[in-house]
Amino acid sequence: MSELRQNMVTKDWVIIASERKKRPEEFTAEPRVLTGQRPPHEPTCPFCPGNEEPELEILRVPKSGPWQMRAVRNKYPALSSEGERDRTFDGVHRRMSGVGYHEVLIESPVHNTCPALETPEQITAMLELFRDRGRYIAQDSRIEHLIYFENHGLRAGTSMVHPHTQMIGLPMVPNDIRARIEEARRYMDDTGRCVFCKMLEDELQAATRVILQGTHFVAFIPYAPFSPFHMWVVPRRHETSFLDATYVELADLGQLLHRVLRKLYVGLNDPDYNYIIRSAPLRDRSQEFLHWYLTIVPRVSLAAGFELGSGMFINPTLPEESAAFLRSVNENA
Amino acid sequence: MSELRQNMVTKDWVIIASERKKRPEEFTAEPRVLTGQRPPHEPTCPFCPGNEEPELEILRVPKSGPWQMRAVRNKYPALSSEGERDRTFDGVHRRMSGVGYHEVLIESPVHNTCPALETPEQITAMLELFRDRGRYIAQDSRIEHLIYFENHGLRAGTSMVHPHTQMIGLPMVPNDIRARIEEARRYMDDTGRCVFCKMLEDELQAATRVILQGTHFVAFIPYAPFSPFHMWVVPRRHETSFLDATYVELADLGQLLHRVLRKLYVGLNDPDYNYIIRSAPLRDRSQEFLHWYLTIVPRVSLAAGFELGSGMFINPTLPEESAAFLRSVNENA
Repeated sequence: MSELRQNMVTKDWVIIASERKKRPEEFTAEPRVLTGQRPPHEPTCPFCPGNEEPELEILRVPKSGPWQMRAVRNKYPALSSEGERDRTFDGVHRRMSGVGYHEVLIESPVHNTCPALETPEQITAMLELFRDRGRYIAQDSRIEHLIYFENHGLRAGTSMVHPHTQMIGLPMVPNDIRARIEEARRYMDDTGRCVFCKMLEDELQAATRVILQGTHFVAFIPYAPFSPFHMWVVPRRHETSFLDATYVELADLGQLLHRVLRKLYVGLNDPDYNYIIRSAPLRDRSQEFLHWYLTIVPRVSLAAGFELGSGMFINPTLPEESAAFLRSVNENA
Repeated sequence: MSELRQNMVTKDWVIIASERKKRPEEFTAEPRVLTGQRPPHEPTCPFCPGNEEPELEILRVPKSGPWQMRAVRNKYPALSSEGERDRTFDGVHRRMSGVGYHEVLIESPVHNTCPALETPEQITAMLELFRDRGRYIAQDSRIEHLIYFENHGLRAGTSMVHPHTQMIGLPMVPNDIRARIEEARRYMDDTGRCVFCKMLEDELQAATRVILQGTHFVAFIPYAPFSPFHMWVVPRRHETSFLDATYVELADLGQLLHRVLRKLYVGLNDPDYNYIIRSAPLRDRSQEFLHWYLTIVPRVSLAAGFELGSGMFINPTLPEESAAFLRSVNENA
């Protein structure tokens, strides 16, 4: 029989559908062009060296000579940093001007790479750049929330295969984030504890869903993951904002993220995925009941009508089995 | 400049990204096998006549002779109607047994059809069967909520092209639905009115986003739609539950849904889509502040890291322009 499980942080229920159960290997991507099999330089790729658009560039690393990383404005931004943040009420309709930031971090000059094929040090450098751009944007009082994410592959919603991450700065805190904040606040009210710290403690004790441990971070599949191999990478130190992460922490996260993404690359044949950094809203960084983390969502299943209609997900895998599978994958293969 | 808009019912914000704006025709699906170009009978399709699995059948219409519609249990159900609904608390982890219903309505014996190619009467008959199965399941006191949905096409999350809809009965009310209920309740508290009735009134007055009007239903694109051509079909009569819809209402809905889906088929080249019926939870059907409706989500764009991380969506179309486009499509073409 299937079971329903509730995520203690989000309060979302998921259906763990044992009747539909698949073995982890069944999620291996069908034969396809792996990232590493593409050409290292693609003449038509706007992110490849030689195709830079200087008017979009924010910064490059290093500042002179061939670049290793670049931060650019998105050419088709969802939001623009020009203009006032204003609200309009047209009857019941609420509207805000589209003030914000939409930046792209080009992780590497190499076209056919991805975090799993990069070095841990490259991932750490990218995380530092993320954090530093975030700190810069956080000074803009119009911006209330930052979303950091990577879309790897077509099914993850990108058409650009050249490795890049994105950051969107929003002039308000999204509804879903507000709901999560309220749940975390309630947990603190009820127990006096951070719900994320408690979850991490439980996962370490149970150990069945833990994939890898670093000095400062732990990677695990949550008890109620909404999709197969959906992972959380949580800092051991209780800290509300990614913007306060230290270099030592980001170096550890770079190592751990590299290893976890290697496991996906090797074990599931370079699946498409998103990873996202979830951090406290900018104007409430002292909220003691929040705790930042990184989440990885391999796109091995699709949301259909049920998911759209209920906000719930059907997960055809047992998280304990998925975690055991990922633990067994030799990421150095 | 982009704008942010808030849906008055869900309170979700969306980014209407004018910088990324696409013309409606750009969403026309790439060259592909249209539903009507497939064979009318597919020997390997388990939903085609001759391949029926009697042990899964719940009912067929008509009862004897060649069938026109069948209701069957899902062969790989997400939930099972056997067993007790029990809750387990394992420390902080909450778990329920996977009690529920997962039924499939095979809409037609014809393999290469879809609602846009069927008659309005076939759609009405399917809606009636939905309602009647819903009424039956509602008698099971273990079931608290019903989700009705159709997945049309691969991008809408189905691997079965034979036209079918599904119904999932849940032993609890999903978190997202609870949040919407609370918002509707608050609107009633604040204004003394149903928020859906108010929205419908506003849309009829503005008229810019209305696509079609029937005697009992209105089809429109909401002010803050989360994706291109995302539509709501709302009953004019204030009623909380789809299960109370009359035959006269469903006949009108069948007509309207047929016309709207024809417009998508003709205007956007048979795009993949989901439609979903959103109705009040079963155990609270008298909640005067709720109002059932049907929503159609063409799958012409993909959720990426930003959407997963924020719960917000970026819609590259102006709903007023999308509505004007759909109004202009001749559904009889």
